[in-house]
Amino acid sequence: MQNHIKDMIVAHPRKARINVDVLHETLAAVFDCAHTTWMCADACLGEPDVRDLVRCMRLATDCAEHCMVTGRFLARQTELDVTVVRPHLELCATACDRCGAECERHAKVHEHCRISHDVCRHTAERCRELIRNLP
Amino acid sequence: MQNHIKDMIVAHPRKARINVDVLHETLAAVFDCAHTTWMCADACLGEPDVRDLVRCMRLATDCAEHCMVTGRFLARQTELDVTVVRPHLELCATACDRCGAECERHAKVHEHCRISHDVCRHTAERCRELIRNLP
Amino acid sequence: MQNHIKDMIVAHPRKARINVDVLHETLAAVFDCAHTTWMCADACLGEPDVRDLVRCMRLATDCAEHCMVTGRFLARQTELDVTVVRPHLELCATACDRCGAECERHAKVHEHCRISHDVCRHTAERCRELIRNLP
Amino acid sequence: MQNHIKDMIVAHPRKARINVDVLHETLAAVFDCAHTTWMCADACLGEPDVRDLVRCMRLATDCAEHCMVTGRFLARQTELDVTVVRPHLELCATACDRCGAECERHAKVHEHCRISHDVCRHTAERCRELIRNLP
Repeated sequence: MQNHIKDMIVAHPRKARINVDVLHETLAAVFDCAHTTWMCADACLGEPDVRDLVRCMRLATDCAEHCMVTGRFLARQTELDVTVVRPHLELCATACDRCGAECERHAKVHEHCRISHDVCRHTAERCRELIRNLP
Repeated sequence: MQNHIKDMIVAHPRKARINVDVLHETLAAVFDCAHTTWMCADACLGEPDVRDLVRCMRLATDCAEHCMVTGRFLARQTELDVTVVRPHLELCATACDRCGAECERHAKVHEHCRISHDVCRHTAERCRELIRNLP
Repeated sequence: MQNHIKDMIVAHPRKARINVDVLHETLAAVFDCAHTTWMCADACLGEPDVRDLVRCMRLATDCAEHCMVTGRFLARQTELDVTVVRPHLELCATACDRCGAECERHAKVHEHCRISHDVCRHTAERCRELIRNLP
Repeated sequence: MQNHIKDMIVAHPRKARINVDVLHETLAAVFDCAHTTWMCADACLGEPDVRDLVRCMRLATDCAEHCMVTGRFLARQTELDVTVVRPHLELCATACDRCGAECERHAKVHEHCRISHDVCRHTAERCRELIRNLP
């Protein structure tokens, strides 16, 4: 079963003020990134070299929290004020940049950090693409 | 870009104590249901007949919260105690049942409630399937 | 400035179906416990002996998540179904018991674990007191 | 039983990079505001004139989400990067401003909106006070 984000955007009674395809891709990215980095922080916790991964766990948790709250914010179309979308997305992209950069340092040793790095980079791009598409 | 839940389960340093495919399907379902019901509560808020949807918004928010916390709980493999998984999943399935039943009442009028009903029913099934597969 | 939980319960348009004082004390406890255990997991992450605190971080994060979702659930009075309150509270009390027991093991060495243990024990009691007061 | 935020800041193994009293007051404020606005959105949902409160529920939910994520971010001292604290607090203060302004419009009719307005205004001030105290 595929996820239902796009169906739910289209089914909303109020017309989206943001391009539907761009919104859908951003929501899919931030929710995936929220889950991936949350799982990366836990994978780090399970590693024998957990002491070397303290900063990675900090930044992965930050990233998971910001992606989740950004997704939950953007997913609600009712009375969405487009003028406040930009700072949300900028903060989310920064959280992705910071987590992604730290994960990259561990990417050759830990596959979960390699995946997390890829997902963070992709998600930061999606957030910035949405900023460029704001009305 | 697909979601990375399964890749992250496989990349975890500790071997999953739950069947990987069943765990993956359950996580994908509960996260999708969390996002869908959160968006359904917001879609209800944007409807002209919002007064008739008060109970629906209540139960959709409950369901979104429980699916999210259940997913975040199950997604962490480090020191997961399998004996406490069952009550989590039972509570989550109950939240899905209750939201799904209310959404069904509005499914002919509101497409977002029809989708939400389908997703809730599917997710409750996935939770119960995982319960049957617990070691 | 004190917290405003009790004022908000009293100001709600729908009469609480649970005794106001018991509800207030439970909400104050679960929210405090959510914040305390979230901070304990982070304090553990900052300790030199982080490797010995892996299980403590796991259970503190579980407890923080469950106390938060239980609080957010109980705090909403509109269309609250009292029959589903019991399993929520039981699960929350179990999460507090488990986190508290692990924190107790580190209480002599780490002050944050000692505080967390106290708060978890108190919160589990409040949850069970509310169960006894359910209509 | 009082809340334990300040005890937990002091018990942390890493010295806070932000003034302890200012940090404590800000955390107490954002967590109280998160719970208050979450309860205000639910109180609005229970009002007979729910149709007039749609925008209020939107902004109260935004505010609750941002106060919570800001609190959970600031509460973690391990590897906290002080340079990213400012945009978090600015976004949180904006969410409080917007929710508070809408609540003020309903403050004479709905006591929960009056309380929420007060708490939002206080919390926005605390966030800006912390910004002024950043190292």
